[in-house]
Amino acid sequence: MKLIIDAMSGDNAPEAIVSGCVMAAREFGQEYILVGKEDTIRGLLEQEKAADLPISVYHADDVIDMHDDPATAVRRKKNASMSVALRLLRDGEGDAMVSAGNTGAMLSGATLVVKRVKGIRRAALPPMLPCKNGHVLLVDAGANTECTPEYLLQFAYMGSFYMEKVMGIKSPRVGLVNNGAEDTKGDPLRKEAYQLLKEAGDAGRIHFVGNVEGSDVPKGVCDVAVTDGFTGNVMLKTVEGVASFLMGEIKNLFLTNTRTKLAYLLVKPAMGGLKKLLSTSEVGGAPFLGISKPVFKAHGSSDARAIRSAVKQAMDFVNADVVGEIERNIDHMTL
Amino acid sequence: MKLIIDAMSGDNAPEAIVSGCVMAAREFGQEYILVGKEDTIRGLLEQEKAADLPISVYHADDVIDMHDDPATAVRRKKNASMSVALRLLRDGEGDAMVSAGNTGAMLSGATLVVKRVKGIRRAALPPMLPCKNGHVLLVDAGANTECTPEYLLQFAYMGSFYMEKVMGIKSPRVGLVNNGAEDTKGDPLRKEAYQLLKEAGDAGRIHFVGNVEGSDVPKGVCDVAVTDGFTGNVMLKTVEGVASFLMGEIKNLFLTNTRTKLAYLLVKPAMGGLKKLLSTSEVGGAPFLGISKPVFKAHGSSDARAIRSAVKQAMDFVNADVVGEIERNIDHMTL
Repeated sequence: MKLIIDAMSGDNAPEAIVSGCVMAAREFGQEYILVGKEDTIRGLLEQEKAADLPISVYHADDVIDMHDDPATAVRRKKNASMSVALRLLRDGEGDAMVSAGNTGAMLSGATLVVKRVKGIRRAALPPMLPCKNGHVLLVDAGANTECTPEYLLQFAYMGSFYMEKVMGIKSPRVGLVNNGAEDTKGDPLRKEAYQLLKEAGDAGRIHFVGNVEGSDVPKGVCDVAVTDGFTGNVMLKTVEGVASFLMGEIKNLFLTNTRTKLAYLLVKPAMGGLKKLLSTSEVGGAPFLGISKPVFKAHGSSDARAIRSAVKQAMDFVNADVVGEIERNIDHMTL
Repeated sequence: MKLIIDAMSGDNAPEAIVSGCVMAAREFGQEYILVGKEDTIRGLLEQEKAADLPISVYHADDVIDMHDDPATAVRRKKNASMSVALRLLRDGEGDAMVSAGNTGAMLSGATLVVKRVKGIRRAALPPMLPCKNGHVLLVDAGANTECTPEYLLQFAYMGSFYMEKVMGIKSPRVGLVNNGAEDTKGDPLRKEAYQLLKEAGDAGRIHFVGNVEGSDVPKGVCDVAVTDGFTGNVMLKTVEGVASFLMGEIKNLFLTNTRTKLAYLLVKPAMGGLKKLLSTSEVGGAPFLGISKPVFKAHGSSDARAIRSAVKQAMDFVNADVVGEIERNIDHMTL
């Protein structure tokens, strides 16, 4: 397998990207193309003493950053590392593309250059949220502000394939995020989507568990939480905000007095587990679902270890052939 | 002031309601009408040795419970305590009505019997969420699944009046919940609402601080978070779910080993503050904003102390004359 890696995008690029790629090459083998400023990358590879590893460098002059307009960045900056990496993927020079860059630019770039699977209306970028006893895939969580019932049906299928084939969850439970559990709940979008998901569930194609409320998702009642990108974005950010607020309050609580400070010292080793649970760097990133070849988004703030995790997940994504599974089922996923 | 209290609705009715009313009467004075089964209520008042308090009883045979259809309950069960209490309020027999009953039935009942302020399109029931350094009013959080930009404008004004006049927050900061902070973000509803809120802010009528993300709300960046009832419901439930999930994880963390169990004993007294912060019984309930007379919802699970808090808040709601403030500003609130 050959992975195409955008070496220049992300908060810690290019150092963390090159270093993470070297970690992955040492740990998992496979071949890699690092795309970006050739001299810089070669210098970093030398520092990493990585001359013997199967890593090649493909030069690209420019970089897309967080200030570039997502909708037009890849089209305007043709020589940016992200744009070049996407074209290499399109042209079959590698099996998957990984970038820690501007999410919106990646989404529109992947759609423009690599294209969606035929029949897929919108690509989605679903993050994994921590929940009781595991993780839940939130699809969509921001890419698509306005959705039709058909988009939600496609998100349900794609999320289900991903959780089954990449995350190894047998018959993933798919829930529709709604303002109540009863099957008559919701706005017209939810009501129509409910019917489509129910039909897909009744036909045995997905494991639909019905409507789920915001409070149910952290309880782990479903493996895939389906929603429009507006609501998904608000949910995702609310989870982050509440977790950060509560962790801050707990920290303050430990600073109350000498007794609580002592308590903190006693509980500190166990706190690592909670931090790990809430940390995104353990999960590494998220796939673009619906693009015709594997494109994987690493977190913008990724350090080398997170890049290594993202590369590993991209490999799993390729091996699981999620794209093929979407293509084989596309007739059930379109109205 | 005279408060009309639905004595029969809520998980702990009638005992907790009568007891909470007695607590309020002893602490705050004022007059009360308890509405419900006369014999039962009089028996409870005797137990509470409340014969000398200014509490009268108004008989009502029936009760609306959680299984009644919210849309039709008050119309169908004319002799239910909630229905009778709402009619007493309409007819000027008291200054405010408090119930811990079926929220949906209260909303449609209040709209049907007491009516909305002329010009107000939808009443809202905004809960208070804990956030850094205080609370934020989330309006709307479930009553109105589908909203127009005008509804959101009205929610912003009503929420702002409530936070200023009842909660004593000078020039409350109003934020529009959106999928990004930039002023071009959102679906058409958000984009149009943004313009309306901006105009109201520019005119100095509300203190509009722009778009806020789900992660900003727990940080306390605004005092009033404006959203449609669908998104608000998902947000509110997500906050509850994440808080409950994290508190569970922290509890597990303290059970890890002997050291962490010892840590728990040391930190336990300080934990009370955090629990209080997350507890709803300290806040007591929420007002229906937009109804032409003060109607106040106590939590369904209210104990006597929570009922006392809800009664106190209802008094503050009357004294602050939020309904009058809405009436005086209605021209700015309608398109």
